[in-house]
Amino acid sequence: MSNDIYSTYHLYPPPQLSEIKTTVVYPATEKHLQKYLRQEVYLIRETGEDYKNITLPFIQSQSFSIQWVYNILEKTAEADRIIHENPDSSNGFILIPDFKWNQKQLDDLYLIAICHRRGIKSLRDLTAEHLPLLRNILQEGKEAILKRFGVAGSQLRIYLHYQPSYFHLHVHFTALSYDAPGCSVERAHLLSDVIDNLELDPQYYQKRTLTFALRADEALLKKFQEAGKA
Amino acid sequence: MSNDIYSTYHLYPPPQLSEIKTTVVYPATEKHLQKYLRQEVYLIRETGEDYKNITLPFIQSQSFSIQWVYNILEKTAEADRIIHENPDSSNGFILIPDFKWNQKQLDDLYLIAICHRRGIKSLRDLTAEHLPLLRNILQEGKEAILKRFGVAGSQLRIYLHYQPSYFHLHVHFTALSYDAPGCSVERAHLLSDVIDNLELDPQYYQKRTLTFALRADEALLKKFQEAGKA
Repeated sequence: MSNDIYSTYHLYPPPQLSEIKTTVVYPATEKHLQKYLRQEVYLIRETGEDYKNITLPFIQSQSFSIQWVYNILEKTAEADRIIHENPDSSNGFILIPDFKWNQKQLDDLYLIAICHRRGIKSLRDLTAEHLPLLRNILQEGKEAILKRFGVAGSQLRIYLHYQPSYFHLHVHFTALSYDAPGCSVERAHLLSDVIDNLELDPQYYQKRTLTFALRADEALLKKFQEAGKA
Repeated sequence: MSNDIYSTYHLYPPPQLSEIKTTVVYPATEKHLQKYLRQEVYLIRETGEDYKNITLPFIQSQSFSIQWVYNILEKTAEADRIIHENPDSSNGFILIPDFKWNQKQLDDLYLIAICHRRGIKSLRDLTAEHLPLLRNILQEGKEAILKRFGVAGSQLRIYLHYQPSYFHLHVHFTALSYDAPGCSVERAHLLSDVIDNLELDPQYYQKRTLTFALRADEALLKKFQEAGKA
């Protein structure tokens, strides 16, 4: 499997040993390297104002490529891996197995729904306008996983990350019994709760204080420190 | 260390090997055994009505002893382990290391704040009336951990479980870098978010739909199934 700077390889040692699966990132940026280094982490409580004044300008100043996402949406890469697609340009999405899952056992089931619509950076951009998209992802994602893998919706953890690792809206589907990386309370937001919150208040995610962790050498942490907020 | 049916033992093998710490539960109930068996898990979306009609009657029908909690609050057990106490009977609490933490390294730091006031079963019982208690736990808990262990509040994950494993209000403090059991999004609720939610709406936790996972053989799951809700 190869898509933009990401590719995966399988090594098949003698059958009594475990199979080895590897993901290669080439060329890797400084931000990729940081992701895999052990670091001190700090909790940030980001108000709606902090997002506008600190986080959003920071995101806009970055040029972290998401070409690999567009390759999937345009089917110039990984087209054969698509599990489900709703092709609607506003409310549609593609469901695809995550890089980390080899699809051989259900214990660590991990898929990603990537929305077709561009420009929704994260949870912070969501309003009531996006409810049809979010409901489609929740409903059709569960149905497609039941149909293809036989796993019921009640055995799935369906959530968004905040901060996400790339700024094009996507939703994680993992096996509920799998202690998946990034499913802890300081990063994951259940899609059902997101839908409830937007139904209650269309501006919920523009106003609320959101908590997330940043590693010591992340540039965004420095921005919060400079603003006296961390 | 010994408290009611719980006790811990340390085994010191030759120094090149790891120390072994064990927790003994004797006598153990069926519910204790279930906790440590591998099981299929299912997600429940519990509305406020479901709580009143299904979960609350179920909790009230159970007689799972929390004598060990009262022993801590009355100082008939573990009194020498207390890290901090606010003795106020309404808004006070005791902060104590969790059973699972041996206090030797900060990597898996884990403490519990147990409130003095009785009768607050869980998150579902919290209203604006409990804000002073919750703010005390957040503020004094962070200060006490900084003072005793040198770990700053920004490096702590501070949260409640829903469902909790015992129905006397308590708050978990774990090292942010520690992938602690029970810190995933379908069980943990950040104390800061709980405070924000109660400030926004005093009845927030009586009304909202809350998500949690239940193991296949838990009696509460059967109650939800009988009601056609799982």
